[in-house]
Amino acid sequence: MRAAVFHGPGDVRVEEVPKPELTEPTDALVRVTHTAICGSDLWFYNGDSDREQGSRVGHEPMGIVEEVGEDVRRVEPGDRVFAPFVISCGQCEFCRKGLHTSCVNGDSWSGENGGAQGEYVRTPHADGTLVRVPDRYADDEDALESVLPLTDVMGTGHHAAVSAGVEPGSTCVVVGDGAVGLCGVLAARRLGARRIVAVGHHEDRLALADEFGATDTVLGGEGDEVEQVLDVTDGGADHVMECVGAASSMDTAVSVCRPGGTVGYVGVPHGVDAAGLELYDFFGDNVTLRGGVAPVRAYAEELLADVLGGTLDPAPIFTKTVDLDGVPEGYRAMADREALKVLVTL
Amino acid sequence: MRAAVFHGPGDVRVEEVPKPELTEPTDALVRVTHTAICGSDLWFYNGDSDREQGSRVGHEPMGIVEEVGEDVRRVEPGDRVFAPFVISCGQCEFCRKGLHTSCVNGDSWSGENGGAQGEYVRTPHADGTLVRVPDRYADDEDALESVLPLTDVMGTGHHAAVSAGVEPGSTCVVVGDGAVGLCGVLAARRLGARRIVAVGHHEDRLALADEFGATDTVLGGEGDEVEQVLDVTDGGADHVMECVGAASSMDTAVSVCRPGGTVGYVGVPHGVDAAGLELYDFFGDNVTLRGGVAPVRAYAEELLADVLGGTLDPAPIFTKTVDLDGVPEGYRAMADREALKVLVTL
Repeated sequence: MRAAVFHGPGDVRVEEVPKPELTEPTDALVRVTHTAICGSDLWFYNGDSDREQGSRVGHEPMGIVEEVGEDVRRVEPGDRVFAPFVISCGQCEFCRKGLHTSCVNGDSWSGENGGAQGEYVRTPHADGTLVRVPDRYADDEDALESVLPLTDVMGTGHHAAVSAGVEPGSTCVVVGDGAVGLCGVLAARRLGARRIVAVGHHEDRLALADEFGATDTVLGGEGDEVEQVLDVTDGGADHVMECVGAASSMDTAVSVCRPGGTVGYVGVPHGVDAAGLELYDFFGDNVTLRGGVAPVRAYAEELLADVLGGTLDPAPIFTKTVDLDGVPEGYRAMADREALKVLVTL
Repeated sequence: MRAAVFHGPGDVRVEEVPKPELTEPTDALVRVTHTAICGSDLWFYNGDSDREQGSRVGHEPMGIVEEVGEDVRRVEPGDRVFAPFVISCGQCEFCRKGLHTSCVNGDSWSGENGGAQGEYVRTPHADGTLVRVPDRYADDEDALESVLPLTDVMGTGHHAAVSAGVEPGSTCVVVGDGAVGLCGVLAARRLGARRIVAVGHHEDRLALADEFGATDTVLGGEGDEVEQVLDVTDGGADHVMECVGAASSMDTAVSVCRPGGTVGYVGVPHGVDAAGLELYDFFGDNVTLRGGVAPVRAYAEELLADVLGGTLDPAPIFTKTVDLDGVPEGYRAMADREALKVLVTL
């Protein structure tokens, strides 16, 4: 089969690789039909984080179940399914708590499972990991494109909103206008926020934030975004969603958080500067820091119902579509900021 | 009047200083009868933090109201009162939220207000700041000694417990066996924790933790305290109280926190190493960081009722008593770890 393989910074190639096979009775083999390139894929692509050369990439799979192990109960061959960016058993203490990212049996889309930017993936713990798309929508291309972000960015934006404590009537600030930040705007609106201030560095993305329900947008980059947000919010918001993961965006987040408020953060801390957090910024005003890697599996059913019901649609974050051969071009386009997020159809 | 004055690391002297005077109609003048030396006073005493030379020190005042401004309504001359380590108006948005430490009219025990380790302090915003001890207990020396920790360490330990989300039945870990950590044990027990694991470095203090209600004590210092706590808690606790403020104690706290749990922190981040927090330790397992400088004024009435009712008694944290002239000796004894916390009676 063919799959995208990482060969070093700036070098992702589509090549022939061994097809994954079932090894455990709880595995399923999924033929990937849709996947995506993630902002976090750019970290190894840009050389900002380490990744083994020769490893398969991609962690946002959607496809058709091709084969299941004998213990798999919830899906069967022919089902349209998607899976979160981490594999989880669905049965341990942490999965039961909705913290699937801390699953004691957790695994990732890599190694012998294959990466999601390839023709097939093996899914360990298929009953826990895979989410079925109901048959009525299973071949509806428009619906599927709206569902695909539930594998990662939509669930992650939702986690930011939940972690920040956004509720009906809230005033919140979303720091970051990448795919996660934009999904965060959708999530905040869905949770009933009355005021949503989106902070970013790109006019076109802030225009999408506006379309997604932001009541105010703040274009940063001149060093005055904190001042602008404090002005718009009359001194800061109780709920701030940090959707980038850089030290500078965390600084912005805590600076616009009202004393006693909460920063919900989902941006994977990355880069040298992000290793340390200026704790005193949080301490003096009792700002809570809540969040982490998003347990998107926990949110899948709830968000899927709204996507299929037509009240939630993150599909506009896909501003470019490629086929499997186009994956290297997709990485380039995202790295060069030509594309916000790339949809891959196989 | 006479008061303790800071002259540089290791050098606190009791000397003649100007007596504070009322300047605003909302001020009260308090004749200090009891105060204490705080672990945080040791930072400037030991040269770990900067403080202006010649400044008066102490921030845990209890005494008798001597004079009040014409707008003061809640206290009158002759009342026995105590005050938290920060001054707050009691009326602004943040005081109303119970976040008196972010009071927009906030002030500190320094400058022209005087320090609490002296014969008199001026209390701005007396109606917001001062807490009356009911007349029945106003001259009960034993009661007063138990009340005094409400000015700081008992309220701070309580804030750690509240921030960590301790509730009836909880399993919690208290990191730190200083006065705040020990008060944290009392607070956790008071909130109904079923299992309280106290982690410290001093056998005598852990013995006090045991007396205060810790169900388990872990003596660290050999580098294996995390392992010991994980063993005792079967993999960590959902509620961890960080009561030190050093980078190493925060590391311990997050390491013994169960995925999805909360670290409630109240130790003022100090020392070079504490400037940065290893955010990734929190991120991967969605550990919440909540807390900050404790709004002890918010907790004063609630805790006072229990102290006076005899169900809460932090007085054993005072292991040494000095008079005003003995304040320099009190600092030395705390710096040399001879005393856990020093009571000053005037």
